[in-house]
Amino acid sequence: MQYFPAALQELADQFARLPGIGGKTAQRLAFHVLGLPMSEAEAFANAIIEAKNTVHTCPVCQNLTDREICHICNDDMRDRSLICVVAEPKDVISMERAREFSGVYHVLHGVISPLNHVYQDDIRIKELLQRVAQGTVREVIMATNPDTEGEATAMYISRLLRPMEVKVTRLAYGVPVGSQLEYADEITLSRALEGRQEI
Amino acid sequence: MQYFPAALQELADQFARLPGIGGKTAQRLAFHVLGLPMSEAEAFANAIIEAKNTVHTCPVCQNLTDREICHICNDDMRDRSLICVVAEPKDVISMERAREFSGVYHVLHGVISPLNHVYQDDIRIKELLQRVAQGTVREVIMATNPDTEGEATAMYISRLLRPMEVKVTRLAYGVPVGSQLEYADEITLSRALEGRQEI
Repeated sequence: MQYFPAALQELADQFARLPGIGGKTAQRLAFHVLGLPMSEAEAFANAIIEAKNTVHTCPVCQNLTDREICHICNDDMRDRSLICVVAEPKDVISMERAREFSGVYHVLHGVISPLNHVYQDDIRIKELLQRVAQGTVREVIMATNPDTEGEATAMYISRLLRPMEVKVTRLAYGVPVGSQLEYADEITLSRALEGRQEI
Repeated sequence: MQYFPAALQELADQFARLPGIGGKTAQRLAFHVLGLPMSEAEAFANAIIEAKNTVHTCPVCQNLTDREICHICNDDMRDRSLICVVAEPKDVISMERAREFSGVYHVLHGVISPLNHVYQDDIRIKELLQRVAQGTVREVIMATNPDTEGEATAMYISRLLRPMEVKVTRLAYGVPVGSQLEYADEITLSRALEGRQEI
């Protein structure tokens, strides 16, 4: 027996396909959209189509952009001999917030994760190797997440880069600024000790 | 400084307007939609417009439907002299699942809740009074939620119905079937005692 009107059920099904949205939440969202004025519902639908139509990856760094080449790759003030490799577009934003990095980026769009069926050819490693092969890159900073998969991906890529005569570095491990030693885990603390620097 | 392409930001903003979706989740959903094939993104956008275009409230019971009159109001097997008043369309589905009720429904689309700026004229009480005023209704069952606002709404409506010579009833309170007394709260238990029946 069908309980909801078909179009409402279809909308709820669409919401339920989104990551982290369960059946009940999807239903609630569908009801919410149904309660919106037509103009707002249209704005929502248009935003989906617009994003799909105008946003694509930068052919240089693979970051998302709506221009031919993204604004960072296009910026003449940036040091193009220094590439920071991150897993996701949102990581570029985090790095930019630090206002410390003056080089350019390379976005992998994922990390190697065999458990989730993501292998080396599924992320944009090939494009990175091509950039480095051009010979103008001085240093590649691996800035994938400091978790198991991020580490493994950084290791894998750095091994591929080794024969290319480019300096490969990794973000420093240590205790977060403003945190308390009491709450730092053992591995972080031991890494912070290993990486201690003279003051 | 703008970090994301405008169209992506706009899509994330649209998601963030949905109830219960925060900024980070909205961003994640926007990225997900961006990763969909164009055909699936279009299906999502169309589902929004389709739902808005085809789903409306039944002129009789105010439930959501895509027909002129909803399938329950249209069903000749249903007892139209018995109206079950619920707060939301999803409550109709819960009642139907019980397969016990053979009457028709009236959906209020909310409950009176001054704290949330929902007053008696904001929900479909007027339409219920009009139905009852036609004189063919024998009994009105108040099936709003057994919480403060549901109670208050049921009380308010039953007071309006009193002069109309119609029987007004409320769903029974008591311990849920299959539950354990140990976990029942005191108010539920005392209501279950009050409403005890001979076996």
